Amino acid sequence: MVRAIVPGSYDPVTNGHLDIIGRAASMFDSVVVAVARNYSKAPMFTAEERVEMLRSVCVEWPNVSIDAFEGLLVNYAFERNATVIVKGLRAVSDFEYELQMALMNRRLNGSVETVFLMTGPEHSYLSSSIVKEIARLGGTVEGLVPHRVEELLRQKLAG
Amino acid sequence: MVRAIVPGSYDPVTNGHLDIIGRAASMFDSVVVAVARNYSKAPMFTAEERVEMLRSVCVEWPNVSIDAFEGLLVNYAFERNATVIVKGLRAVSDFEYELQMALMNRRLNGSVETVFLMTGPEHSYLSSSIVKEIARLGGTVEGLVPHRVEELLRQKLAG
Amino acid sequence: MVRAIVPGSYDPVTNGHLDIIGRAASMFDSVVVAVARNYSKAPMFTAEERVEMLRSVCVEWPNVSIDAFEGLLVNYAFERNATVIVKGLRAVSDFEYELQMALMNRRLNGSVETVFLMTGPEHSYLSSSIVKEIARLGGTVEGLVPHRVEELLRQKLAG
Amino acid sequence: MVRAIVPGSYDPVTNGHLDIIGRAASMFDSVVVAVARNYSKAPMFTAEERVEMLRSVCVEWPNVSIDAFEGLLVNYAFERNATVIVKGLRAVSDFEYELQMALMNRRLNGSVETVFLMTGPEHSYLSSSIVKEIARLGGTVEGLVPHRVEELLRQKLAG
Amino acid sequence: MVRAIVPGSYDPVTNGHLDIIGRAASMFDSVVVAVARNYSKAPMFTAEERVEMLRSVCVEWPNVSIDAFEGLLVNYAFERNATVIVKGLRAVSDFEYELQMALMNRRLNGSVETVFLMTGPEHSYLSSSIVKEIARLGGTVEGLVPHRVEELLRQKLAG
Amino acid sequence: MVRAIVPGSYDPVTNGHLDIIGRAASMFDSVVVAVARNYSKAPMFTAEERVEMLRSVCVEWPNVSIDAFEGLLVNYAFERNATVIVKGLRAVSDFEYELQMALMNRRLNGSVETVFLMTGPEHSYLSSSIVKEIARLGGTVEGLVPHRVEELLRQKLAG
Repeated sequence: MVRAIVPGSYDPVTNGHLDIIGRAASMFDSVVVAVARNYSKAPMFTAEERVEMLRSVCVEWPNVSIDAFEGLLVNYAFERNATVIVKGLRAVSDFEYELQMALMNRRLNGSVETVFLMTGPEHSYLSSSIVKEIARLGGTVEGLVPHRVEELLRQKLAG
Repeated sequence: MVRAIVPGSYDPVTNGHLDIIGRAASMFDSVVVAVARNYSKAPMFTAEERVEMLRSVCVEWPNVSIDAFEGLLVNYAFERNATVIVKGLRAVSDFEYELQMALMNRRLNGSVETVFLMTGPEHSYLSSSIVKEIARLGGTVEGLVPHRVEELLRQKLAG
Repeated sequence: MVRAIVPGSYDPVTNGHLDIIGRAASMFDSVVVAVARNYSKAPMFTAEERVEMLRSVCVEWPNVSIDAFEGLLVNYAFERNATVIVKGLRAVSDFEYELQMALMNRRLNGSVETVFLMTGPEHSYLSSSIVKEIARLGGTVEGLVPHRVEELLRQKLAG
Repeated sequence: MVRAIVPGSYDPVTNGHLDIIGRAASMFDSVVVAVARNYSKAPMFTAEERVEMLRSVCVEWPNVSIDAFEGLLVNYAFERNATVIVKGLRAVSDFEYELQMALMNRRLNGSVETVFLMTGPEHSYLSSSIVKEIARLGGTVEGLVPHRVEELLRQKLAG
Repeated sequence: MVRAIVPGSYDPVTNGHLDIIGRAASMFDSVVVAVARNYSKAPMFTAEERVEMLRSVCVEWPNVSIDAFEGLLVNYAFERNATVIVKGLRAVSDFEYELQMALMNRRLNGSVETVFLMTGPEHSYLSSSIVKEIARLGGTVEGLVPHRVEELLRQKLAG
Repeated sequence: MVRAIVPGSYDPVTNGHLDIIGRAASMFDSVVVAVARNYSKAPMFTAEERVEMLRSVCVEWPNVSIDAFEGLLVNYAFERNATVIVKGLRAVSDFEYELQMALMNRRLNGSVETVFLMTGPEHSYLSSSIVKEIARLGGTVEGLVPHRVEELLRQKLAG
């Protein structure tokens, strides 16, 4: 049985993230979507809100569970008996950063392997940052995030 | 008649920006240089100072006007009856970011098209950030920005 | 009046090319799709076949005409009174090559400007080479090229 | 049970290839290393020689088998009941080409997913082409390819 | 006699930095490792601590001296009679930024030349930022930085 | 005394090459410009013609000599007592290829170091291939290559 971790800040989860989570779910026996607590930038949503949000939009995949973690990702993977880290790739700049992190993680724990999946081209321009920027400037994020996240963004920005 | 928008933070305008504005002016009937008010980083010059600065250095092009905007760029383009957004490209890192923004803008409003023009190679290393850094460290920015901007930088840093 | 040239080898024309030609047609008064005769690799279709193919699929745009050229692109642009060269961009590797060609063309004739348009993300993986490779290996190219080109590919490979 | 295909020309197999094959073997239930017969460049080794070479150096992994294929990779994957294609990534230029192929393969057959694994940094400069070039120029390829391949290269170049 | 400067923030010095300093020492008559005081991000170590740290780990190279500077790098190089600036390159993103800085420095002072050396592939994923992040998250940085720096990081994080 | 080698095919030498050779000459005690005989593509000029061409345009630098070599570059460097290989960098695609070659050369002979110099931005779009293509298509290469090379290209293409 191979367990994979799909780590991220998910602030908020986008349709691009869901694309990658779904692909991982079809390929590995068990998938843990892991929300990074120790996220450097000031997040819009708390770790708990992000976990809740992911739970509500990942119900369709029975082998996917949601969790939050802090500390080193490879240590968390080890604790959860996961041997694979899954990352989505969109662009060259993603690739270089992710390659650096993956090589460092391999050095920190050689028994955890990073695999890269491609985001579909229709999501190639999508990121949590751009979603938050559009929402803040009053644009619609319909089709970029799940309906539940649209609502949460509206509430957060109204509040 | 095709109207093009050349958006930017212009904090301050450089000779690289003027290179792109001049090329756009020769290619489109009407050009609006649009200063972004909702610029995330703390700007050195106010939006009004940036508009004024651009006005004084763009007088040679009769079909170029200067404005400031806030909110989504595609909404502003729609209000101004502009169907083209012009962006200058210098390097690969520019390209990836601009491509992401352009694809998102196309999705937000399919009737506005982004076109990319190349900065001349003599400006390939030029940016507002590097100009500000050189000025702050006491270096000369002669030849990198218009004379008017040299003066304004001197005043700002003296004040 | 601004006339733009959309040069290429079009061996064969793909839906990605048509995407760019259509965008150029909406932005410039007159568009010349120019088939390169002096194409270094051995082409699958003759220049005449490629011109014919483009004519049949570009009928919907009244301001688009098709031609073939040889020699330097900037000289051809000058002869045709075109001041703009349009190129589609898909990826970083495209970008670097096209930037090099555009800078060289600007040096050879400073009155011709190159503008870059983005291919839609659904065509980001599409090229004439990959279309020919799929057809040769017996795969379907439906949706990648116009129907007329599908037929022509079938005939060419059968013959 | 997930079966993965690791396609390539393997002309010849390098230690970088073996690195990727070993990682795939630890992650998927069954791995088929698939030698491309319809390899565009004139190969140094025949498809049969390449299959033989791979068999001799992959004996340590019981879940790895070797095969040759022609035609479209996604069709071959379908015939072999494989749902995953594994590709190694070394550099940005790899990434762009592989991304293009992967998106095209996804379009040709949506049930086959491509995953990317990172080559170890000590193999980041290694390719079949550079190995052949060094061998032809009289340099040593020890440590770059398995011993068996060193011998075969020596025989091939002597013959 | 050619004197080279190896500038950086060295917050803290890593084994990747030492790799570059050692290569520079073997190639130029005199090498000045220059700690940037005017480092934009809030540093973990003071400029004095960074100078001290470098002194303790560079003792093996008799032609290497350590210094701190502020203001423009090219002015500092001129004051120190250095005609070469040495920078290490790891990845494409490094390359673009460093190229921009090098072209700007050449413009500011044409008598100072920038040369790029390659970091060894085993250090390609290593940076001061990633070292600090690992240390903060409780991971080990053994083998990534000199022993002295391991101790200093431990003290700093304990304090 | 440090001797540097500036290898290349120089088919023909361009002003971009001369830019790099001149910079190397100002930085190292002795510089050998080394023409690759075993150049894979069919060259326009013989190795002897290329050596002659370089001799005539490098006379101004007393510490620069011209030679041709075959076999592995690192072996040639060793024979000539050179410890540095100099390569010019223009773009990201250059960078990746050159990095691969440099890492391989370091592995083949650890005592030879590769350093990268930047071509001036006015030569960033210049290559031997593009010069030959322009000349073949009847364009002028004035300012791209030395006058002597202009003449030689004219003779070669006339003959």
